[in-house]
Amino acid sequence: MESIKVALLGTGVAGGGTFRVLARNQEEITRRAGRGIEISVVGARDPERARTVVGGKVRIESDLLLAATDPAVEIVVELIGGQERARELVLAAIAAGKHVVTANKALLANHGNEIFAAAQAQGVMVAFEAAVAGGIPIIKALREGLSGNRIEWIAGIINGTSNFILSEMREKGLPFAAALAAAKDRGYAEADPSFDIEGIDAAHKLSILSAIAFGIPMQFQKVYTEGITGLTAQDLRYAEELGYRIKLLGIARRNPAGIEMRVHPTLIPKRRLIANVEGVMNAVLVSGDAVGATLYYGAGAGAEPTASAVVADLVDVTRLHTADPENRVPHLAFQPDSLAATPILPMSEVETSYYLRLKVADQPGVLADITRILADRSISIEAFLQKEPNAGDAQVDIVLLTHKTQEKNVDAAIASIEALATVLGQATRIRLEALS
Amino acid sequence: MESIKVALLGTGVAGGGTFRVLARNQEEITRRAGRGIEISVVGARDPERARTVVGGKVRIESDLLLAATDPAVEIVVELIGGQERARELVLAAIAAGKHVVTANKALLANHGNEIFAAAQAQGVMVAFEAAVAGGIPIIKALREGLSGNRIEWIAGIINGTSNFILSEMREKGLPFAAALAAAKDRGYAEADPSFDIEGIDAAHKLSILSAIAFGIPMQFQKVYTEGITGLTAQDLRYAEELGYRIKLLGIARRNPAGIEMRVHPTLIPKRRLIANVEGVMNAVLVSGDAVGATLYYGAGAGAEPTASAVVADLVDVTRLHTADPENRVPHLAFQPDSLAATPILPMSEVETSYYLRLKVADQPGVLADITRILADRSISIEAFLQKEPNAGDAQVDIVLLTHKTQEKNVDAAIASIEALATVLGQATRIRLEALS
Repeated sequence: MESIKVALLGTGVAGGGTFRVLARNQEEITRRAGRGIEISVVGARDPERARTVVGGKVRIESDLLLAATDPAVEIVVELIGGQERARELVLAAIAAGKHVVTANKALLANHGNEIFAAAQAQGVMVAFEAAVAGGIPIIKALREGLSGNRIEWIAGIINGTSNFILSEMREKGLPFAAALAAAKDRGYAEADPSFDIEGIDAAHKLSILSAIAFGIPMQFQKVYTEGITGLTAQDLRYAEELGYRIKLLGIARRNPAGIEMRVHPTLIPKRRLIANVEGVMNAVLVSGDAVGATLYYGAGAGAEPTASAVVADLVDVTRLHTADPENRVPHLAFQPDSLAATPILPMSEVETSYYLRLKVADQPGVLADITRILADRSISIEAFLQKEPNAGDAQVDIVLLTHKTQEKNVDAAIASIEALATVLGQATRIRLEALS
Repeated sequence: MESIKVALLGTGVAGGGTFRVLARNQEEITRRAGRGIEISVVGARDPERARTVVGGKVRIESDLLLAATDPAVEIVVELIGGQERARELVLAAIAAGKHVVTANKALLANHGNEIFAAAQAQGVMVAFEAAVAGGIPIIKALREGLSGNRIEWIAGIINGTSNFILSEMREKGLPFAAALAAAKDRGYAEADPSFDIEGIDAAHKLSILSAIAFGIPMQFQKVYTEGITGLTAQDLRYAEELGYRIKLLGIARRNPAGIEMRVHPTLIPKRRLIANVEGVMNAVLVSGDAVGATLYYGAGAGAEPTASAVVADLVDVTRLHTADPENRVPHLAFQPDSLAATPILPMSEVETSYYLRLKVADQPGVLADITRILADRSISIEAFLQKEPNAGDAQVDIVLLTHKTQEKNVDAAIASIEALATVLGQATRIRLEALS
């Protein structure tokens, strides 16, 4: 089947990332979507700059409206940001019968009701996974994954810039201004950071999440919004002493009198997972009446995390637009005729790190024997713990953490180690993963 | 539009929960799915017991095959568990042209390839969100939410029983046998717990996740599986000293030579979020080439968390089976003609707890004045921190945490407190949420 044709509007961070991810993962994306997804035209006000991002092959239009309404195109991806121009282009694409994918939270928070009504009237889809929490599939989770629940509340760290600033303030005891400067240095805050630090960006996202969670229209103007500019390092420290951490949360809650929508700095108990989300990462906690609390964590911004969400929307729209009704999403994610025959590795070939605990006689030379055996197998030691023997006890526990090696090397080393007269009983071996 | 008719097979924990959640959230589910979802027949070997679960109205069939092939039914929900009988019923339902929703991981891990091929040939859907990690929508996240990524690895705490046992061993220093007994006492472990503690249940789930992540067939028999029965409290303690925590992980990783699939106890750095998932909770960490690491956390078992996933599948199947092609999933999760006009609460009406920091003169009676003002507004104090003044400093910081109250009460109290001659400057007020 022929590839579905897509117009990409914007070749900035998100647009460039989307172009790159689509190209790099083309083969897997096609196996999942059931047909190729091809950017056939790029809309960019500065075609020369755009050319450096998308390479020499694809057509570039400096008139974005022309790209958005190109007759060959079935999906328009809007990644130019801002509100007025984006609104015109999205509405024009919808009027021309195109499906739309956008990452534009400000656009949806302010003009979503108008845009969704137009899409509904035209029978086209508007997908916006990238508009909230970057690469975390939180829109899909709320809209589809938790559809059996009455959603009770949502609490999210949905602005990476302010979370980074709060992490810096807490970890380094910095005042707000210094932490903001650090965020600017790292490219996490813009020259004018007010949308982020005043909570407006989080309020945009919260109004989108609230609409989906509670089945209400977009109501950005009703979100109570308070940013982090008034926080002091002292307050973060006092909160810590009391067992809490301060985060900028977007909170939406259903209560008997109505719906709360509010963005403000919030003390939360330190032991909650979400209290431990640091730096620019995002996380959204959702409480449903059936499922209880669920948490979704990941990168909330950046070229490729945003692209991850944009491409997922492209795959969704392609599947819905294309496939026969009963088989929109393949059972095993990939089309049944394109499953791979990749071999499964035997455990002996797996490479990981190891925790080894040995009971040894408390006498000189034991450790030398053990480390020599490990060295002979090219297994290097990352950390070492020797416990003092109890009084009168002639046995000691030795614990070693190794660097990565293949399981068969460790198996062989353990056999040699257990054969030493000074090693008592069997070694305990537990695998170790850094998960990074 | 008429409700879609569903046959429910099994009225145990998951079946009972599904019946209850569908009934309780009927109105919201209909607003989401675009039509009602109705259990029109229940299949149960013991109709009398089933009657106590599903009440007097619904038809009960003791012949499950009759229920699974009932002509009026379009979706069959299989929640009887086990393998042989479940397989027969699911294949019979598919042969009769029914869509299937199942929570049965053992069935899919062992017979998934056969079942999916049959469903593909018949043009029906088999949905199984509840088969892995209970209410966490991890199947949907992997299959759809991350479809733009090349998945690199997955690491999951996907067996609540063994995670509970490890939490007990670590927190209370218990040996394995005592922690297992505690799990049985609480109903978290079955009389024969071997599927859970030997890692087999986790291996079932891992083979499902691996298939979806990497586009490979189900290959349960190739999962390396090692349980937690050999772990000692001592190893958990040593790991802790070295900065690690031990979890039973299901790990699937793509590496140049092939795919790793393994379930075993694993040391992971304590600072990782997933290392802090305790008790019966589940969490799955997924690393994709574009999105980086994302984490999904929630209840992995239990009547209603399982029901949450089953009902989400029912809504998915209903949407795909029913709606016109372009509007399968409503933009804002609920059908556009059924958005609610629920009012948004003004901040003054919102009820939450508060952190209050006050700078006060270091003299007697100040605290009495402040607490009286709070008491007059019925604001009770949850915690209190008074910092020693620096030498020669006549000012002290007082920090109060309040119990829940409406914002307008706190506003009024702060105004009175700031009017005290002994209170210097403005109060700092930060809201506090327990998120539980």
